[in-house]
Amino acid sequence: MKSTIFMKPGKVEIEDIDKPQIQAPDDVIIHVVRTCVCGSDLWAYRGLEDKAEHSENSGHEAIGIVEEVGTDITTVKPGDFVIAPFTHGCGHCAACLAGFDGVCQNHTDNFSDGVQSEYIRFQHGEWALVKIPGKPADYSDAMLKSLLSLADVMATGYHAARVANVKTGDTVVVVGDGAVGLCGVIAAQMRGAKRIIAMSRHADRQQLATEFGATDIVSERGDDAVAKVLELTNGAGADAVLECVGTELSNDTAMKVARPGAIVGRVGLPHEPKMDMTTSFYTNTIIAGGPASVTTYDKQVLLKAVLDGDIHPGKVFTKEFTLDDIDDAYQAMTNREAIKSLIVVD
Amino acid sequence: MKSTIFMKPGKVEIEDIDKPQIQAPDDVIIHVVRTCVCGSDLWAYRGLEDKAEHSENSGHEAIGIVEEVGTDITTVKPGDFVIAPFTHGCGHCAACLAGFDGVCQNHTDNFSDGVQSEYIRFQHGEWALVKIPGKPADYSDAMLKSLLSLADVMATGYHAARVANVKTGDTVVVVGDGAVGLCGVIAAQMRGAKRIIAMSRHADRQQLATEFGATDIVSERGDDAVAKVLELTNGAGADAVLECVGTELSNDTAMKVARPGAIVGRVGLPHEPKMDMTTSFYTNTIIAGGPASVTTYDKQVLLKAVLDGDIHPGKVFTKEFTLDDIDDAYQAMTNREAIKSLIVVD
Repeated sequence: MKSTIFMKPGKVEIEDIDKPQIQAPDDVIIHVVRTCVCGSDLWAYRGLEDKAEHSENSGHEAIGIVEEVGTDITTVKPGDFVIAPFTHGCGHCAACLAGFDGVCQNHTDNFSDGVQSEYIRFQHGEWALVKIPGKPADYSDAMLKSLLSLADVMATGYHAARVANVKTGDTVVVVGDGAVGLCGVIAAQMRGAKRIIAMSRHADRQQLATEFGATDIVSERGDDAVAKVLELTNGAGADAVLECVGTELSNDTAMKVARPGAIVGRVGLPHEPKMDMTTSFYTNTIIAGGPASVTTYDKQVLLKAVLDGDIHPGKVFTKEFTLDDIDDAYQAMTNREAIKSLIVVD
Repeated sequence: MKSTIFMKPGKVEIEDIDKPQIQAPDDVIIHVVRTCVCGSDLWAYRGLEDKAEHSENSGHEAIGIVEEVGTDITTVKPGDFVIAPFTHGCGHCAACLAGFDGVCQNHTDNFSDGVQSEYIRFQHGEWALVKIPGKPADYSDAMLKSLLSLADVMATGYHAARVANVKTGDTVVVVGDGAVGLCGVIAAQMRGAKRIIAMSRHADRQQLATEFGATDIVSERGDDAVAKVLELTNGAGADAVLECVGTELSNDTAMKVARPGAIVGRVGLPHEPKMDMTTSFYTNTIIAGGPASVTTYDKQVLLKAVLDGDIHPGKVFTKEFTLDDIDDAYQAMTNREAIKSLIVVD
């Protein structure tokens, strides 16, 4: 089968490798229909993170058709159409029961990779997989994009808003205008935010943020952005902040625009080992977040919202590619020509 | 008037200084009835924190009688019996309205000091002061101790539990067996915790923690304490953790005993500039806390609970002194002969 191989920084290629097999009783083999490139894949592609040359791809988002199931699987059967979340919660440990299946306590191999392929082995599939009614052919291309976003970015944006406790009437700042930040805007609106201030410096992303519900755009960065948010909020700061980047600057900005006692919901993978937590003490700023509870949110709220046409997170996929053009898909995101690159597999 | 002067590490003395005067329209002069020594006063006394020699004391907890009020004060009048919180919220900024008056946005001089004295100037007294019904003579010594605890430690313990979102049925770990940690045990019980695991290595504090509602005592430290908590919680960790110390070890322990997605409510003054926030990301651990919302909690819940005899936080005062014996009061705490030293002024 075709699978993406990370060759070296700046280069991914398709190779023909063995199709995955069932290895454990709770494995599920899935024939991928749509997959995509994630902002987190770009860290190694840009040479900013170590990754072995000629290694498995770090893709972790897919929707597809169940091909084969392990002997313990009862929730899905061959032929079912499913979302394959990037997380693999068990559904019954203390973390999963508290709605934090992104950090399930029963699985150490809780994250997907290698998903930019024709087939994947999805481990711990019993509770984690999310069934989609019908077949791929029942849905438009636009709907398939929104369904794919439920494997990661829409759920991750929702996680930021949920852990930041966004509620009716809140003023929310979203730091980051990538796919996750834009989905964070959707999530803030779903949870009733009155004012959503999106930080973005790119016209296409500003436009999409506005379409998703942003009421204000701040194009400044760093302390200028902080000053702008304080001006917009009469010096008070935001009731909740969604940190969707993960750099030192973005975290610093997020903490500074938070009203004392507000929560910063961070979902950008942290790229600084330590953070100043003394300043945040003296403002009572709350730091929450981590890997999203994808299965929980999909099952509880997001799949229905997508199928009902209430939200359209698939709009973050602004360019389409096939597996054979995988390097172009990475390049389009690296060069900011695409917000997020879709890969059509079938 | 008599006031405590910090002479040098290991030495405080009483000196006769000028009685404070009204300097601003929202000042209130208070004749102190009871004050005390705080664990945070000991950092400089032990030479672990810089403080100028022959300088004002860092005391910040008192109850007393209003002596004189500034021209803008309408809420209290001379003769009123009041709690003088260590914080000075305005009551109407975004932070105060959100219940975070410990980090009021209208006042840069938000914390008391110099309170180990016969009289104090309480700035921004209009909303921050908390009236106690009647006069000091109406109350027993035990009740006066509990009322004094509402100036800081009981409210601070409550803050840890509130920001950690302790709720009915929770399993809570309290890190730290000083006065604040012990008050944290009370707060966890007030908020309905089912199981309260107190970390303590001292018999007198273990006994008081148990009296206050602790169901389990862990006397181990560091990773041994973490292992013990995980054993007590079937490997799950705690639903909420109250961090009442402020050292690197106590914060590390607090984060490690938290169930994924749980909140660490930290109220120990941080003595490490930076913290590892990558590990906490991959467990979705939430870090909350800072200076307590003393006035809010006193007015909403704590004063009534004390006056009704529902809670007895004054029991943390295990030794009594007069102002003239202030150095003995510091010594008793430094040498762990007292959990907290009371100073009887009148």
